[in-house]
Amino acid sequence: MNKEFTPYYAVIFTSKQSANLEGYQKTSERMEKLVKNQVGFLGMDTAKSDIGITVSYWDSLESIKNWKQNLEHQIAQKSGKEKWYTNYKVRICEVLKEYSFNK
Amino acid sequence: MNKEFTPYYAVIFTSKQSANLEGYQKTSERMEKLVKNQVGFLGMDTAKSDIGITVSYWDSLESIKNWKQNLEHQIAQKSGKEKWYTNYKVRICEVLKEYSFNK
Repeated sequence: MNKEFTPYYAVIFTSKQSANLEGYQKTSERMEKLVKNQVGFLGMDTAKSDIGITVSYWDSLESIKNWKQNLEHQIAQKSGKEKWYTNYKVRICEVLKEYSFNK
Repeated sequence: MNKEFTPYYAVIFTSKQSANLEGYQKTSERMEKLVKNQVGFLGMDTAKSDIGITVSYWDSLESIKNWKQNLEHQIAQKSGKEKWYTNYKVRICEVLKEYSFNK
C-alpha cells in the first residue's frame, strides 16, 4: 500500500486462562515492563473476552527469539504452562502490508 | 517448527469503537455468518477490552482480497467508518510458524 512501508513482524498470542491465576497479575505487569525495554520491540495490542489476544510487534525475527529466550520471560512462560493457561497458541507472522482509518 | 507446516495468512484488525453502535450488533453477526462461507476462510479469534482485536485466518492473499471486496462486507465497512469506529488498523500478515500448548 505504502511505498515507504518497512516490513516488520507480529507475534499473535491467543490464550485461554485457567481458574488458577495466582501470581498472574504481578508477572503480567513485570513482563509488560520488561518487553518494552527489549531491543526491537515496536508495540503491543491486547484484549480479553472468552479468550485473550495479545499481539506484539517486532523489527525482526531475531528480536522475537531474544525475547522468547529472556530468562525472566522463560520463568513466566513456565508458570503460564503450569498454572495460568489451559491452552495457548503462538503465531509468528511477517506483516506484509497495513492500512488504517482515523476519524 | 513443524515440517508439515503450510504457510497461511492472518488479518489483524484492531479497533476503537465510537459511542454510536446503532446497527453494529446485527451487522457484526451477519458478517460473522458471511465470512464463514468465504472460500479460503480458515478461522477467527476475537476479544474486546479497551480496544477490540479480531484476527482472521486465510489460505491466501487472494481470499483476503475477495472478502474485502465482498459487496455486503463493503457496505459494512462503510458503516464502520461512518458510525462504529473512531479508528482502526488492518495488518495483512503471513504466518511463518506457530506452536501451541494444550493442558
